Amino acid sequence: MAKKRVVIALGGNALQKNGEVSAEAQKAVAAKVGKLIAELSSRYEIIIAHGNGPQVGNILIHEEEASSKNAPAMPLETAVAMSQGQIGYWLAQSISNAFIKEGKNRKVATVVTQVEVDKNDPAFRNPSKPVGQFYTEKQALALAKAKGWIVKEDAGRGWRRVVPSPKPKSIVEKREILDLVKSGTIVIAAGGGGVPVYRTKVLRILKGVDAVIDKDFAAEKLAELIKADIFLSVTAVDFAYLNFGKDNQTALKNLTAKEATYYARQGFFKAGSMLPKILATTEFARKGKVGVICSLDNLEDALRLRSGTIITK
Amino acid sequence: MAKKRVVIALGGNALQKNGEVSAEAQKAVAAKVGKLIAELSSRYEIIIAHGNGPQVGNILIHEEEASSKNAPAMPLETAVAMSQGQIGYWLAQSISNAFIKEGKNRKVATVVTQVEVDKNDPAFRNPSKPVGQFYTEKQALALAKAKGWIVKEDAGRGWRRVVPSPKPKSIVEKREILDLVKSGTIVIAAGGGGVPVYRTKVLRILKGVDAVIDKDFAAEKLAELIKADIFLSVTAVDFAYLNFGKDNQTALKNLTAKEATYYARQGFFKAGSMLPKILATTEFARKGKVGVICSLDNLEDALRLRSGTIITK
Repeated sequence: MAKKRVVIALGGNALQKNGEVSAEAQKAVAAKVGKLIAELSSRYEIIIAHGNGPQVGNILIHEEEASSKNAPAMPLETAVAMSQGQIGYWLAQSISNAFIKEGKNRKVATVVTQVEVDKNDPAFRNPSKPVGQFYTEKQALALAKAKGWIVKEDAGRGWRRVVPSPKPKSIVEKREILDLVKSGTIVIAAGGGGVPVYRTKVLRILKGVDAVIDKDFAAEKLAELIKADIFLSVTAVDFAYLNFGKDNQTALKNLTAKEATYYARQGFFKAGSMLPKILATTEFARKGKVGVICSLDNLEDALRLRSGTIITK
Repeated sequence: MAKKRVVIALGGNALQKNGEVSAEAQKAVAAKVGKLIAELSSRYEIIIAHGNGPQVGNILIHEEEASSKNAPAMPLETAVAMSQGQIGYWLAQSISNAFIKEGKNRKVATVVTQVEVDKNDPAFRNPSKPVGQFYTEKQALALAKAKGWIVKEDAGRGWRRVVPSPKPKSIVEKREILDLVKSGTIVIAAGGGGVPVYRTKVLRILKGVDAVIDKDFAAEKLAELIKADIFLSVTAVDFAYLNFGKDNQTALKNLTAKEATYYARQGFFKAGSMLPKILATTEFARKGKVGVICSLDNLEDALRLRSGTIITK
């Protein structure tokens, strides 16, 4: 029987246990992820689309703080590509090492991935995603003037740059990723939601743009385009919940896309946290496939559809 | 007739025309490279292995200068992976855009690449490659103590960290790269000489190590392993020269591996500049294949073996 094809969206925070942000600490967490992926790969074709929030945040802090004429800061879109190299390397090595320990020699590759967005996406008129470091009001306004940034005050913690978070339209490297999957490779792709690019008006060429694409939406789009059977959004909890954190919290086990949409509209899920996971998995379910929300702990059971929040049409 | 398979090693300096180091300036140069690669790809299978000297240098400067407890500097090996994401993204987008302008839709992908080195390589006992920023003697010695770095005084310009530059033993992602090439994809791989990894003694797992692998040697190894027909090392000049820069400079056109080795031993080529290009192309020629040294300007003629320094067995 053909292996089921699974796209796994893994949070960038998932690599930073207890807030430890050193390369060594993140690699240690990646080693555990690698072991799990290696185990699962005997039964599934696996594509991993990881987040990059804290990692690209630190890259931006370094790039901006130490920017100079001879070593100018790279723009956000290029920083996303840098974070794909960084995290992709850690994950690929971890997965390969898990195979080596089992005496196996499976193929694993990270593909630097551009994700196409629409320049007319309303997100470009309302940049809302904070990125990079905190500034004083004065610093922030000076940067806004010098670099054309949009800056906003962030919940009393200081000022930050905000960027658009447009929806993914397509995955530029979808065919290359699919070729690799078909040749038996475990692929890491669309890291950090992908490098955001749009097509210019006349020539229709690709051009990077400073924005951040939600990694769950990007991963769902990839899952769609490479015809995956299951799309998993992996988070810190085993299930999506109604009334999360309250006395009456209820784990959601099996949901139809219609039910999930209803709960989402009722405001049961936190924006920027569970909500995009619900929306992305529901979008996938609507196409007649299976969307799953789970944690690393119940991922294996969730793939067998025995745990996690399972969303179907 | 089957297309000839060509590995092109492209200097990291090649992307920085007139010393312009901004992302925009480097992308503009990449666009020209992209156009050339797109043209050539109708007649050749192309794999690009780029350098990363100035780019990873700037990443290291940013990482080190702005390092803090909450945003610690990434190690050199991870910084190489970051530079692969950065440059790979620029090159892949440029090549794709050149195709789009021609109304074509060819596959292009950057593969984050680990390159295996031998922990017993003598380079580890004699770190000699300067990386990152300049420090005062006091700063350098403090860093050496804090981080276990080896630091050296650099030609009166200040102190710098030096790292080993071991020879590449194998390319971890060779099979994945070859799969992509065979499926018709133009591949960017082994950027910056690859992320240096070695195999641990007992488990034989991969482990990153702070070192820098010469990109010409890494590209040659890749060319060997994926059975390329031609290996080109692209530099700032159209040919390798005897007595370069002197009145009696002589362009070398056709050389046997034996002749090239003879000239190299006589000290005709500058270490860290033309010498590694000669050694890498000669190594490839020794296997009965064709090694070429050329510039971007005469690359097309060089591929037809009508220009450049052509080295054969």
